[in-house]
Amino acid sequence: MSSTFGHLFRITNFGESHGPAIGCVIDGCPPEMELTEADLQHDLNRRKPGTSRHVTQRRESDRVEILSGVFEGRTTGTPIALLIRNEDAKGRDYEDMIDTFRPGHADYTYWRKYALRDPRGGGRSSARMTAPMVAAGAVAKKWLHQKFGTHVRGCMQQLGEIEIPFSSWADVEANAFFVPNRQIVQQLEDYMDALRKSGDSVGARLRVVATGVPVGLGAPLAAKLDADIAHAMMGINAVKGVEMGAGFASVLQKGSEHGDEMLPTGFAANNAGGVLGGISSGQDIEVSIALKPTSSVRVPRRSITRAGEPTIVETHGRHDPCVGIRATPIAEAMLALVLMDHALLHRAQNGDVSHEIPAIAARAATPGNS
Amino acid sequence: MSSTFGHLFRITNFGESHGPAIGCVIDGCPPEMELTEADLQHDLNRRKPGTSRHVTQRRESDRVEILSGVFEGRTTGTPIALLIRNEDAKGRDYEDMIDTFRPGHADYTYWRKYALRDPRGGGRSSARMTAPMVAAGAVAKKWLHQKFGTHVRGCMQQLGEIEIPFSSWADVEANAFFVPNRQIVQQLEDYMDALRKSGDSVGARLRVVATGVPVGLGAPLAAKLDADIAHAMMGINAVKGVEMGAGFASVLQKGSEHGDEMLPTGFAANNAGGVLGGISSGQDIEVSIALKPTSSVRVPRRSITRAGEPTIVETHGRHDPCVGIRATPIAEAMLALVLMDHALLHRAQNGDVSHEIPAIAARAATPGNS
Amino acid sequence: MSSTFGHLFRITNFGESHGPAIGCVIDGCPPEMELTEADLQHDLNRRKPGTSRHVTQRRESDRVEILSGVFEGRTTGTPIALLIRNEDAKGRDYEDMIDTFRPGHADYTYWRKYALRDPRGGGRSSARMTAPMVAAGAVAKKWLHQKFGTHVRGCMQQLGEIEIPFSSWADVEANAFFVPNRQIVQQLEDYMDALRKSGDSVGARLRVVATGVPVGLGAPLAAKLDADIAHAMMGINAVKGVEMGAGFASVLQKGSEHGDEMLPTGFAANNAGGVLGGISSGQDIEVSIALKPTSSVRVPRRSITRAGEPTIVETHGRHDPCVGIRATPIAEAMLALVLMDHALLHRAQNGDVSHEIPAIAARAATPGNS
Amino acid sequence: MSSTFGHLFRITNFGESHGPAIGCVIDGCPPEMELTEADLQHDLNRRKPGTSRHVTQRRESDRVEILSGVFEGRTTGTPIALLIRNEDAKGRDYEDMIDTFRPGHADYTYWRKYALRDPRGGGRSSARMTAPMVAAGAVAKKWLHQKFGTHVRGCMQQLGEIEIPFSSWADVEANAFFVPNRQIVQQLEDYMDALRKSGDSVGARLRVVATGVPVGLGAPLAAKLDADIAHAMMGINAVKGVEMGAGFASVLQKGSEHGDEMLPTGFAANNAGGVLGGISSGQDIEVSIALKPTSSVRVPRRSITRAGEPTIVETHGRHDPCVGIRATPIAEAMLALVLMDHALLHRAQNGDVSHEIPAIAARAATPGNS
Repeated sequence: MSSTFGHLFRITNFGESHGPAIGCVIDGCPPEMELTEADLQHDLNRRKPGTSRHVTQRRESDRVEILSGVFEGRTTGTPIALLIRNEDAKGRDYEDMIDTFRPGHADYTYWRKYALRDPRGGGRSSARMTAPMVAAGAVAKKWLHQKFGTHVRGCMQQLGEIEIPFSSWADVEANAFFVPNRQIVQQLEDYMDALRKSGDSVGARLRVVATGVPVGLGAPLAAKLDADIAHAMMGINAVKGVEMGAGFASVLQKGSEHGDEMLPTGFAANNAGGVLGGISSGQDIEVSIALKPTSSVRVPRRSITRAGEPTIVETHGRHDPCVGIRATPIAEAMLALVLMDHALLHRAQNGDVSHEIPAIAARAATPGNS
Repeated sequence: MSSTFGHLFRITNFGESHGPAIGCVIDGCPPEMELTEADLQHDLNRRKPGTSRHVTQRRESDRVEILSGVFEGRTTGTPIALLIRNEDAKGRDYEDMIDTFRPGHADYTYWRKYALRDPRGGGRSSARMTAPMVAAGAVAKKWLHQKFGTHVRGCMQQLGEIEIPFSSWADVEANAFFVPNRQIVQQLEDYMDALRKSGDSVGARLRVVATGVPVGLGAPLAAKLDADIAHAMMGINAVKGVEMGAGFASVLQKGSEHGDEMLPTGFAANNAGGVLGGISSGQDIEVSIALKPTSSVRVPRRSITRAGEPTIVETHGRHDPCVGIRATPIAEAMLALVLMDHALLHRAQNGDVSHEIPAIAARAATPGNS
Repeated sequence: MSSTFGHLFRITNFGESHGPAIGCVIDGCPPEMELTEADLQHDLNRRKPGTSRHVTQRRESDRVEILSGVFEGRTTGTPIALLIRNEDAKGRDYEDMIDTFRPGHADYTYWRKYALRDPRGGGRSSARMTAPMVAAGAVAKKWLHQKFGTHVRGCMQQLGEIEIPFSSWADVEANAFFVPNRQIVQQLEDYMDALRKSGDSVGARLRVVATGVPVGLGAPLAAKLDADIAHAMMGINAVKGVEMGAGFASVLQKGSEHGDEMLPTGFAANNAGGVLGGISSGQDIEVSIALKPTSSVRVPRRSITRAGEPTIVETHGRHDPCVGIRATPIAEAMLALVLMDHALLHRAQNGDVSHEIPAIAARAATPGNS
Repeated sequence: MSSTFGHLFRITNFGESHGPAIGCVIDGCPPEMELTEADLQHDLNRRKPGTSRHVTQRRESDRVEILSGVFEGRTTGTPIALLIRNEDAKGRDYEDMIDTFRPGHADYTYWRKYALRDPRGGGRSSARMTAPMVAAGAVAKKWLHQKFGTHVRGCMQQLGEIEIPFSSWADVEANAFFVPNRQIVQQLEDYMDALRKSGDSVGARLRVVATGVPVGLGAPLAAKLDADIAHAMMGINAVKGVEMGAGFASVLQKGSEHGDEMLPTGFAANNAGGVLGGISSGQDIEVSIALKPTSSVRVPRRSITRAGEPTIVETHGRHDPCVGIRATPIAEAMLALVLMDHALLHRAQNGDVSHEIPAIAARAATPGNS
């Protein structure tokens, strides 16, 4: 339910933005897999705050401790508990907001649901809660790669009005925006500097791709692979839209155009985004997500007090002016978690199915996936 | 898992397009609610095939039988089993396709996953499997309306390149396309007639709205209301994209624009689509979905045989040239199922929470919701 | 939850004793398994009423119809829906009881929980609801036998004060009591005739055994195999006690006696009942259950009316004077369902684990299992 | 699944006997409940090792840290993570056993399932893993008491051949055996001293009782309250048998004797153990469990090596000679967890059910419950 993600490869998340610690319990991981904290730290470092002036300046090392489930460097098959201590929880930033609500923020809904107002920060609704998911996702990425050769990668496709042409996956790791095009980085830096000065925030669009995904993951009706991917993506903080393959563009397509033709050498295109009838086709999994602008802005906005009186809110404190900038490792992690979960589900039911001919190849239909 | 949808209000779906029957078991329904088959038939009739020349001509009465869980016209709290006999399952339409795969269809992935090729039709991947979900959704709609005054309504927003301006909800029920604008119906008829003649199909975009939703439904992380809505929507046949509120448009928005301001009289806008931090805000739930064009088209397409040899596929038989046309009642049902499930989850955990002031009003920010 | 049993091999049960039909949906069954209605009917016939004068005289053919999930005699991997029409639902037997409660019966608790009083019979609490579980169990038995050579068998060990010495499994199928000793059948017939005349009922103790169970099923803490077996057994109507292996006798044992010694040829005994640390050991799974006497007796008992006034209840109508008599096929089915579910769970997580030496043999430590 | 216990009030357990820490995440707890570490420590102290010479001499303070889910002394409704550091993990005690298996121990099954042999101790199979469950159970006990006035209490009923007559609940807390009779403590001390000298271990029988349980908890078929209690109890380390109410004694009972008569003042007896048809009746919940003797004994036993060769095993190190001695707080905790989970489930579905007359009183039918 609420804090547990997945069916067989299950991540139970805990913690709050300004509490003593955050973390998760990973249940259902196969045994005998080599795993150390270093395997998790790489993606945690990609996500952590303070990596550039364009993200929150909160200082967290996000150093992860494995508390269980690993013995002599290998998974034991029992729960892997991960602990990350919060190091820079400056609660006072938010204290002046305790009696009102930020427009577009979960302040109001948490208070209505739980009768709770944590004056120290976003509490459970903070994007900080994605750190344990990123660590868990690193486990899934490693397992998927070892087992199937799967690669899960993401990048930013659009920042506000700036669309980013794909150049190469290598470029993605060479900048703090995770953009696949190093030529555009300076433009983004300038754009963000101006935005920060204006006290405002902006949205973004990201893409996540998995290559080397086996055919057959997912199941009809309530366990469709794309449905579970949509659940995972829409569950990421600030996400307001999810597309598979051609996505909303498929509204304009004809059937003769949308359906990816099949050749003995592979699929001729990838409008499907790697899923047909809720089951992976062997094509690349292609996901696109929209992230809204951060709701904590310095620009004054109209709101109400807890007593229902009108007021004006300006949010100071340390916030990401574009929450999309740090979201690439998060989206990768969530996709990896879904794929690993479904790989386990698939072999549970269909482990004995064999076929006379191999699956056809996935042909790269999108830039950079070859 | 695969065939069971929901956490507490749970729908277990069964059947195939061309088997003897389809249906579902609804578990977890509160007792003492008045319920008859007539309550379910209305939405089943809205979804059923053969209602116009623009959808499949398969003839199914989709008459539902309640097998259990209702006694003397009231729910008993025990499972409500629903049965719909298939009446017009003409398997031979498909027999010539048994040895190949339709581009864009689940033929291939089912065969890879289950070693199964049902020559009688789409089997479990058929949109016919949504009929039991529509029936179950009618139960949820009725309960939500009695309990909270919730209304769940949907309409078509776009058919291929034709965008449909919103006129009124009343118009929706007055045409076979579920468009909220009766002026545009003739244009759509002509468009579809031409499309059918060309042997092709086209995509569509739908909108689903719930008004009167209580504040507080949903929970952080893995049980976010919008994440579960995305799961439900992406699980509908042919859906390739899901948006909440401003959706992909929020990429271009500034934070000062996106965050819905709060006034003592209610929210000033609805970019959120009714969900903040994964929890309902009391605003209308606003969802938009993209449906791809049907994959079964008469236009010749390249494909492969089961032996991996190249071939050409043309699909004849009875198909919807735009699967989006009949999808409005389906999308409504799926949204209703998610909302009722979360209403039960919410009172399980938070049934004792009380508040000193009432929630602020949801102000209509979208046409027709006032 | 309530009506769905199992984690991956999932049975969703529906129906009431006196409604139009009962049945279930089996989800998660592996594809390509040969399956016909005849495979299910054998165990349904063993369980059905009216097979001797010692059980209820209700006449039900319990003929099962497969509605989905099987194509051309093989499972498809999609849900298998089973339907059994009720044929002899004589509601009037119970009408005089509508305003009071039978001591020891679920009448009272259902009424309190659901505000429901179904005057037609036990409704959802009836042992009739075990028929679909028996049918589903037959699927599990077949799969387990084909996959591992597993046999699941049960027998009666005690009827009231009469303990039944084990003679042979062959004897079990040769009498209506499922006793493993044909010498004792006449004594049981006489005992039951006298009991029936007295208008009373009596308890029973059953044993269920699975041989050929692979090592490794079950998982620590919340998914222990024996815990799930206990859940399944205690969930059978009238069961008040469950034992694994030595059971309550292990209270008196010393550790040096209880722990089953291991020899290169196998385990030297089976106090464990086939489970160590919640995981199957390769020994036979040995379960023993206690069933209470039926609560519907002709002997007058003190009770209250719905208004809380004192009254006297005598139950007439068609009841099993010993519900344990027909429970053997039910207990077998429930054990088979748990084992199959765990076999799927095990290969999901541990499908890649390999070992240098084979498991040691299970040596029969209990009569008749060699 | 494996490490998560419960449906709505969910405990995800992690850790190993000799790893750095153990703990759990409690999900689904209602908000606004006062909670501090002191609330949990009381039961943790009752369970912890080293409290007398009759239990393991391992020294653990079992001090619990709340990492999340509590703000300013009240639950927030979000996950409560609990951490207990292992302080006295002397791995070398076990090193000589790494190549063989203790008869009756999970050594063998863990190795077969996970290809894992943790030479430091029982790892995940250790009774140490019950500490987080005891802490979580303390939360449930507190909530149940505040909400319904429920009391959950346990005691030892039998130690090996010594049956313990019930004297008073007050006596239970006055001795290290949790026996409800202080007269018998010296006899038990002598018995255990002799047993320890002999290098052997022995079984025990415990009783757990909940008073003040509301009517209506539990649901038919797969969510029966007694079935979930049986699951919880059989999942406790070393448990081999579970009884509700009259339990195995009901085999010998007649229906006219077993069914608890109902009077306007309450039930006249409690053979049911508080559950009828899987739903709580308002009678006391009465559970009895059998615990096997500890498998780690100094007495030499026959076993095999990992290579399958015969060998002799003697287990030294720090072990409980009767695991039942410390199990009373564990069994109480597990019962409390099940009851709270079902209380939440019940109000989810049946929160609107109202009745014209109150439930009848539960009359104490067992010593000490009045």
